[in-house]
Amino acid sequence: MAVDLTPDPSVAQLAQRTAQFVRQVVVPVEERERGVARSEEVRVELQRAAREAGVFAPHVSAEFGGHGLDMRGRAAVFEEAGYSLLGPLALNIAAPDEGNMHMLEAIATEEQKERYLRPLAAGEVRSCFAMTEPAPGAGSDPAALTTRAERVPGGWRIDGRKWFITGAEGAGFAICMARTAGEPGDAGGATMFLVDADNPGMKTVRHIETLDESLYGGHIELLFDGCVVPDEAVLGEVDQGFRYAQVRLGPARMTHCMRWLGIARRAQDIAVARAAERRLFGSRLGDLGMVQQMIADNEIDIAAARGLITQACWELDQGGHASQSVSIAKTFCAEAVWRVVDRALQICGSLGVSGDILLSRFLREVRPFRIYDGPSETHRWSIARRVLREHDKTAGR
Amino acid sequence: MAVDLTPDPSVAQLAQRTAQFVRQVVVPVEERERGVARSEEVRVELQRAAREAGVFAPHVSAEFGGHGLDMRGRAAVFEEAGYSLLGPLALNIAAPDEGNMHMLEAIATEEQKERYLRPLAAGEVRSCFAMTEPAPGAGSDPAALTTRAERVPGGWRIDGRKWFITGAEGAGFAICMARTAGEPGDAGGATMFLVDADNPGMKTVRHIETLDESLYGGHIELLFDGCVVPDEAVLGEVDQGFRYAQVRLGPARMTHCMRWLGIARRAQDIAVARAAERRLFGSRLGDLGMVQQMIADNEIDIAAARGLITQACWELDQGGHASQSVSIAKTFCAEAVWRVVDRALQICGSLGVSGDILLSRFLREVRPFRIYDGPSETHRWSIARRVLREHDKTAGR
Amino acid sequence: MAVDLTPDPSVAQLAQRTAQFVRQVVVPVEERERGVARSEEVRVELQRAAREAGVFAPHVSAEFGGHGLDMRGRAAVFEEAGYSLLGPLALNIAAPDEGNMHMLEAIATEEQKERYLRPLAAGEVRSCFAMTEPAPGAGSDPAALTTRAERVPGGWRIDGRKWFITGAEGAGFAICMARTAGEPGDAGGATMFLVDADNPGMKTVRHIETLDESLYGGHIELLFDGCVVPDEAVLGEVDQGFRYAQVRLGPARMTHCMRWLGIARRAQDIAVARAAERRLFGSRLGDLGMVQQMIADNEIDIAAARGLITQACWELDQGGHASQSVSIAKTFCAEAVWRVVDRALQICGSLGVSGDILLSRFLREVRPFRIYDGPSETHRWSIARRVLREHDKTAGR
Amino acid sequence: MAVDLTPDPSVAQLAQRTAQFVRQVVVPVEERERGVARSEEVRVELQRAAREAGVFAPHVSAEFGGHGLDMRGRAAVFEEAGYSLLGPLALNIAAPDEGNMHMLEAIATEEQKERYLRPLAAGEVRSCFAMTEPAPGAGSDPAALTTRAERVPGGWRIDGRKWFITGAEGAGFAICMARTAGEPGDAGGATMFLVDADNPGMKTVRHIETLDESLYGGHIELLFDGCVVPDEAVLGEVDQGFRYAQVRLGPARMTHCMRWLGIARRAQDIAVARAAERRLFGSRLGDLGMVQQMIADNEIDIAAARGLITQACWELDQGGHASQSVSIAKTFCAEAVWRVVDRALQICGSLGVSGDILLSRFLREVRPFRIYDGPSETHRWSIARRVLREHDKTAGR
Repeated sequence: MAVDLTPDPSVAQLAQRTAQFVRQVVVPVEERERGVARSEEVRVELQRAAREAGVFAPHVSAEFGGHGLDMRGRAAVFEEAGYSLLGPLALNIAAPDEGNMHMLEAIATEEQKERYLRPLAAGEVRSCFAMTEPAPGAGSDPAALTTRAERVPGGWRIDGRKWFITGAEGAGFAICMARTAGEPGDAGGATMFLVDADNPGMKTVRHIETLDESLYGGHIELLFDGCVVPDEAVLGEVDQGFRYAQVRLGPARMTHCMRWLGIARRAQDIAVARAAERRLFGSRLGDLGMVQQMIADNEIDIAAARGLITQACWELDQGGHASQSVSIAKTFCAEAVWRVVDRALQICGSLGVSGDILLSRFLREVRPFRIYDGPSETHRWSIARRVLREHDKTAGR
Repeated sequence: MAVDLTPDPSVAQLAQRTAQFVRQVVVPVEERERGVARSEEVRVELQRAAREAGVFAPHVSAEFGGHGLDMRGRAAVFEEAGYSLLGPLALNIAAPDEGNMHMLEAIATEEQKERYLRPLAAGEVRSCFAMTEPAPGAGSDPAALTTRAERVPGGWRIDGRKWFITGAEGAGFAICMARTAGEPGDAGGATMFLVDADNPGMKTVRHIETLDESLYGGHIELLFDGCVVPDEAVLGEVDQGFRYAQVRLGPARMTHCMRWLGIARRAQDIAVARAAERRLFGSRLGDLGMVQQMIADNEIDIAAARGLITQACWELDQGGHASQSVSIAKTFCAEAVWRVVDRALQICGSLGVSGDILLSRFLREVRPFRIYDGPSETHRWSIARRVLREHDKTAGR
Repeated sequence: MAVDLTPDPSVAQLAQRTAQFVRQVVVPVEERERGVARSEEVRVELQRAAREAGVFAPHVSAEFGGHGLDMRGRAAVFEEAGYSLLGPLALNIAAPDEGNMHMLEAIATEEQKERYLRPLAAGEVRSCFAMTEPAPGAGSDPAALTTRAERVPGGWRIDGRKWFITGAEGAGFAICMARTAGEPGDAGGATMFLVDADNPGMKTVRHIETLDESLYGGHIELLFDGCVVPDEAVLGEVDQGFRYAQVRLGPARMTHCMRWLGIARRAQDIAVARAAERRLFGSRLGDLGMVQQMIADNEIDIAAARGLITQACWELDQGGHASQSVSIAKTFCAEAVWRVVDRALQICGSLGVSGDILLSRFLREVRPFRIYDGPSETHRWSIARRVLREHDKTAGR
Repeated sequence: MAVDLTPDPSVAQLAQRTAQFVRQVVVPVEERERGVARSEEVRVELQRAAREAGVFAPHVSAEFGGHGLDMRGRAAVFEEAGYSLLGPLALNIAAPDEGNMHMLEAIATEEQKERYLRPLAAGEVRSCFAMTEPAPGAGSDPAALTTRAERVPGGWRIDGRKWFITGAEGAGFAICMARTAGEPGDAGGATMFLVDADNPGMKTVRHIETLDESLYGGHIELLFDGCVVPDEAVLGEVDQGFRYAQVRLGPARMTHCMRWLGIARRAQDIAVARAAERRLFGSRLGDLGMVQQMIADNEIDIAAARGLITQACWELDQGGHASQSVSIAKTFCAEAVWRVVDRALQICGSLGVSGDILLSRFLREVRPFRIYDGPSETHRWSIARRVLREHDKTAGR
């Protein structure tokens, strides 16, 4: 009984099966599609293959067709899935569906689970999570939430504007955060609502062009304009939305880290292969000291990121919020993954910035992760404040 | 008579006029086109406006319609032009035309100047510089040149493959580096040839997709396949190509730095405006310490880059190669500009990664500059070797 | 059965006891002595206290009076001991004694253990490890070993020069690496010898002044000048010295990391206390964004370092060499600890560079760790080469 | 008439003479004394030699025995003087005397000049500048000034505590900042007083131990305890002290940068010599890529620092405060010099941390410069605020 990093054998096996599936099945599709699934055909093709390979939806419980992985198990498997930009889509563990499934399993009623979670876990529909708002609304500061839900007979009427709602295009339903009490800036008073895609009060304003393009269903601006939903649309309890958001956010941040860590490893593998083959100034590229330094720094960043993910996941699996460890892991991973891809691209030189290989695509995909799910600056602020609070407590203030 | 950073008044005036022209005329077009001129109409429109504003082709001599700016003068004016991605195109000082004009003025015969330089300086045609080859050919190591030119009666026959030939699409002619003596790896033996676009032996293989897209005429793969040119196509002297390439490369590296420094300032201005307006957690974004740090680091990077450009340009204007100062300035600028744009984007948050503003476009455009015109690693290697050689000389070895 | 970061309860208890002992007993002595134990009185006083507190020599087996901690157990306890510069000395786990005990337990004969290990483990004598030589001898490259041992009747005669031999001043014996076969540059042919301090052939040349001063017994230059030792002085087998050095080095690198991680935490605690109390520009120092950033980066560095240590220790406890994980952890920790102390000092401002607090002492102590036990550059080179070798193997070369 | 980096010939000659003097005369003394002048003999010996070499006190006007260098001239000469830790002392341009001479020349009465400036410029006495106070007094925030001067018949009575008063030990007089109006936190209300060393109201509390030790006269804590001075002791006008401090601080920050830039070059020269001579793993150290990277980064940092100093000095010589350029140059230089020395030490490995060469001494000396004369964080804050103010002005707020 001591610190043990040996994964559960069934997890190790699933991770290995995932690794093999991604390399053999997903990567060829990814390269063909240049990293971005632009049609339902691709999604359906990949998800069918994942089901056949027995690696589909590993995070949901067996009841809903998955393998019931805890956070540590997800860490092992999602990293392997993330080795391709299309791996998470194939396994149905892409954002935001994966986080939504996690939350629905945790707080939805049985009826809601049957109606929303079951088809979502099966890959029959997709979903989105409508929280972020244009400035000065909810963003880095969730409490700035301005979208309101007002009581109407038998339900609620939601009004407000959301943007950067990932996956909203083609989603079967949205989970929408709206303020049911208090004013923008207040720490409480939010409620989550399940809104069907065909609700006429929920309108797609536009598809926001972004640097990254691989998250399926895009980043969408939505308008909730007199959007009426019934009482059964309330997810969890009224006014408890911020608390649920925390339930969702910690794990969702970690699964982002896991997936992007996979891309970091992929980038490193591409760069190492190049360094091993390319000759320059009479040497193998990989024999030049500055290239070796980049390769080594990538290894260090990848290993450190994995260690921080392990720590946070272990804490989450113990039942806590793990807020500090999650902030630390998220901040480090987002920046480390970025550095790794950037160095890999540099090693590959002009080939690296070309579309002939996927590194410049990876670079575009990972950059926004330093911003979404909490910008690095916001997390650093939280980390420092927790440390200072802890100090004040100990010092008896 | 002492160190003096006051610019020549005529240069200062031209720089100011350029700044005004770019802000009033070019930026609106750039925003409309989202940073990339995708048609001749745009180029022609912008260049006509630049001519009317009296800021066109400032670097070529008056004889060819320009202002005859030396390198220090270019530093002042090109930075202003670079404030917009389309500024250099408007002024006809974009890569690779600007560098080609520089070289043609320096080494072409009078006849070649009339035939190639005059229309190029006037914006009537464009050009490209065909040096880089796929591995294991000329790249970071120019001596690896593999394209060959063989003597044929009355001229030469060129055979070889070139890639990342910027601006080749639609160019009126190419300046092609080919080996006329020695073997790949030899330090000498290259010759430059002027090849007309309609030469059937010069074929466009493909348009290479790249992370950056704003350099007009794209990055092209060219095949020289039995490409016969007459003796008059030789630019300068036979076997002196590497020497001429050095004539071109030092200044060309500096003008790249100047233009990208303009983009760095633009990115900073966008971020500062955002920081001044956006409120977060009850503060103005610009009042938060971590944002202030990014703003300050941008100022520092911009000022340091400018200082290094000034140093190298002053040395070039004294008539030397300024190899060490050029390598230092190029390496620092390429990395500083990248950092500045990255921080600016971070300050703007999700807006920064969206297409609503141009920062993510800038990020894509500046990344390759850490690779082309000599990757940072190659320049660092050269810098260190020069220092060690200097040491050995002093130490009497 | 899955990844588990819960420490063994007995280890957790010992770590906690160590933490308490260090804070209550060692830190006051450390502050009184300004971080450096300069006399045997201090060492004896601290070690007696540690014995009384039941935290003495936790790494050696019960047979020799310790707690028999494995590497994971050491990670938990040594970090707590390292919270004070004098903590490791107090617990008898300072370099190089701790690594020597580790090696003696692994490879010494029963007789050698009784004669050398038992008094060493009891704190009755100290020891040193005489491997490093002045250039061009053994240093970053151990194979450059030039000190020779020649066969003489009944034993060996050692000749050579060693420097930076930590702890040699006042040590009861040295473990000396000498070449018994091959030439400098050869990968094998080294043997380890136990040399008593009173051997007239082992002479102290000088005490080398260094930036760091807290490692007890200093950094010494030794001359082996016709130093004759009997056959029983051979530690392990003849010609197997490099292999044993590897046995020693991996764990020794990790225990260095653990101890210095303790100092990093201490530095952070000092800085956080200062940030909590000091007011500047009308704010609490800890409320300023740039200070928060430094505090947060310290937390991130500390957590990442700990994760990498855990990984390497777990691998070592599984019985492998863990060379890659050790190199990664060593490189990251040495640099992270340096960054943490540097930031902590910056937070404390002029107080930080004064002798009123210990931060500038810490800065001096941790700097050399980026050099000894393998400079960061050598480790990065090793890391990259292992990655490339792995690639070549997989790619079937 | 254009940007010109050619130094004035007389300045160039003086700089060259200084370089020669420092290498031939000062460096041997510095190495003998291990970087720290610990007695008046050393100071007197060095200053006599500087006088003989015709390089003494180059910054004061001819009237007071100097060469009357403007800031650009100082940049050239002080950098050469700074090549040795004892060079500035030899030339009588060390802090704080140099800055005090600058200020006395600018604002003292003729009588004060004769009494204080003349002997100071001649090296007959030394001085100190008593501004900084322990928290919560004047430090990063000068307006927090708490030392008070109250009117008494015929003069003033000063009460307060100062610390980190560089050079106070053995100084002939102090220039003391005290509050004559307003309350701590107010932006104005300070006055400067000339206080003779034998004034019984000015007491040395203690010599503060610090990481750096080479600034002659130490860092002292002073107590002004009923310290009465006559009206003639007022330097400049009453209540204008903060304004004068600005007069002193900008140039003083730049001269610090110049001198430390000299040490950076020295560190680089030591490292390059080592890299040229030392062999490792079968290569010359300087042929290893990671070492070349450090050498190159040092060159880049040194060149960029020099460019920023040039810019700020040129602005100061135009008559402005150059606040933004001074903040930029100070922040960059302090950090760049630190990086350069740190890399140089790393290149030299264990030799670098030993007292056998001076690099670890240099490391200790340059660290505090990131804190004194405004910590990097305070300067970054100022830089950002100026940018935002400029934006607000332009945007018409």
